[in-house]
Amino acid sequence: MNTNDLAARVQHRIDHKTKPLGALGRLEALALQLALIQDTDEPRLEAPQLVVFAADHGIAAQGVSAYPQAVTAQMVLNMLAGGAAVSVLARQHGLALTVVDCGVAHDFAPQPGLLIAKVCHGSADSSTGPALTAAQCEQALAQGRALLQRLPGNVLLLGEMGIANTSAAALLMARLTGLPLAHCVGRGTGLDDAGLAHKTAVLQRALDRHGDVQAPRALLAALGGAEIATMVGAVLQAASERRVIVVDGFITTAAVAVAAALEPAVLPACVFAHGSAENGHARWLQALGATPLLDLGLRLGEGSGAALAWPLLQSAALLLAEMASFEAAGVSERAA
Amino acid sequence: MNTNDLAARVQHRIDHKTKPLGALGRLEALALQLALIQDTDEPRLEAPQLVVFAADHGIAAQGVSAYPQAVTAQMVLNMLAGGAAVSVLARQHGLALTVVDCGVAHDFAPQPGLLIAKVCHGSADSSTGPALTAAQCEQALAQGRALLQRLPGNVLLLGEMGIANTSAAALLMARLTGLPLAHCVGRGTGLDDAGLAHKTAVLQRALDRHGDVQAPRALLAALGGAEIATMVGAVLQAASERRVIVVDGFITTAAVAVAAALEPAVLPACVFAHGSAENGHARWLQALGATPLLDLGLRLGEGSGAALAWPLLQSAALLLAEMASFEAAGVSERAA
Repeated sequence: MNTNDLAARVQHRIDHKTKPLGALGRLEALALQLALIQDTDEPRLEAPQLVVFAADHGIAAQGVSAYPQAVTAQMVLNMLAGGAAVSVLARQHGLALTVVDCGVAHDFAPQPGLLIAKVCHGSADSSTGPALTAAQCEQALAQGRALLQRLPGNVLLLGEMGIANTSAAALLMARLTGLPLAHCVGRGTGLDDAGLAHKTAVLQRALDRHGDVQAPRALLAALGGAEIATMVGAVLQAASERRVIVVDGFITTAAVAVAAALEPAVLPACVFAHGSAENGHARWLQALGATPLLDLGLRLGEGSGAALAWPLLQSAALLLAEMASFEAAGVSERAA
Repeated sequence: MNTNDLAARVQHRIDHKTKPLGALGRLEALALQLALIQDTDEPRLEAPQLVVFAADHGIAAQGVSAYPQAVTAQMVLNMLAGGAAVSVLARQHGLALTVVDCGVAHDFAPQPGLLIAKVCHGSADSSTGPALTAAQCEQALAQGRALLQRLPGNVLLLGEMGIANTSAAALLMARLTGLPLAHCVGRGTGLDDAGLAHKTAVLQRALDRHGDVQAPRALLAALGGAEIATMVGAVLQAASERRVIVVDGFITTAAVAVAAALEPAVLPACVFAHGSAENGHARWLQALGATPLLDLGLRLGEGSGAALAWPLLQSAALLLAEMASFEAAGVSERAA
């Protein structure tokens, strides 16, 4: 379908709903975006999938996180048991929740809701060498694509879990945006000033170590991690299938930014759920030309912000489908 | 229950949930607010009621709105038929929707979802005399209290419909806040620059006409309108019953501001759903010390913003009730 024709037709329909022109603000632009992603006048959101990509990071050994590495596996189990924030929110909104072990430093017993797609037991320390080998990175990308293909529905909500993964995301941000490292590094799960200074120094060593790496795929392997690489594969696949991609916070933005560097058509498929309180997120969204739906001071990850924004996507689709036009409702148009 | 003890206990519980300290941002403060409103460790949101207060305004005859007065009655029927934005959103979220005819210039046939509590067929023109007589205003306040008492549940979501009611709200804002009229008047349903200048001139005449009126109740009668006065009664009653009050945009903020001027205990019971794009709303929220949950550029009224924010209130209550603690989930606390 011709995109310009479709956009004009959907905008015309929005403009003739029983409301002043533009009165639904951001929801109007969102409804139009959903129509364009699905290439239809009648976008429908079906069987939304919240996927939490989990992995451990070798750089955690450098003391860049306020929490011990064991928390990654513990939180995976907490999510599966229904006690994590994302579990509560997924239940509230009827979102199917899948946790993917992309590279946690723990072997989980098989259980419902857990998908094993391990490329490592924790990545290597990017401050001393590449986080992933090229082969591990390719495997993660392929597994991300493959797991997405098996999921039903037409919406992917991104979540993640991985102690020290704000470090991996900050490194990718610094290299992909060219911004100074200080604009990319944040307190993560709650570092104090000394912790932040130490984290920044460690990340600077990682940047120095991989200064000659240039291509997005190679940067992903050198600085990223198993959950980010798997998510990149899932995002590329989701965009190619015209699924709506709901981006959560800082780490999922890293995955989307790498995916967009590989395939620019990814970005129009993305709805940015919220602006995280993590330092760096606001600047990264700006660099991507993205305006998030929510601004609630969240800095949790897990997909919690994506889940919180989900009802707004539903609202946008429902308003487009179900609101009456002035003509159909017998409501007078504006006087002037 | 001692409020400080309760607040400390709930905050302690929030702080021991499986998440970094403060990582759920605004939702944590919201969960605490819900607990304090309901005076319990376990706030529960039950049978939420979205009530749309509708009335016409004599000042519409001065050409202060982009739409003809007949639209008020037409939109009431559209809401009841399910075609208005608020109808769609109430359906989406399972909110009981009641439209109250507080003073529409039209006689509706009885029908499900419509409550007749008329104090006039449109208020009088406040630029030439008081909008409501003192008796009409008292009747509206009493009817607002009475209708609220008959509604089930413990959450009131405020909505309104009334051509020219941004004029009434702007007048109340100017008098209650003492801000210059230009900071209070906005484009409403979409006035152009000339329309806005004309509206401002008309409102200045109304302010001059009632310059000697001082008491909040008398200002409500002189400058307000039937839906605002009825809403003030409902808000006072809801606060006295410890219901959660979800405030929508500019006009519902007017009702809450008048109610708070009469009874300061109203404000802690209010959750401000969104910052409207209507000029004046941001400043008024600031004057009330309120930070809205959403900022989506909405300027529709009807309770649409309140309905859109509703899932966030549910999330806050559910996270408090259902998230696991570090101890219960066997998750390690922070290292430092």
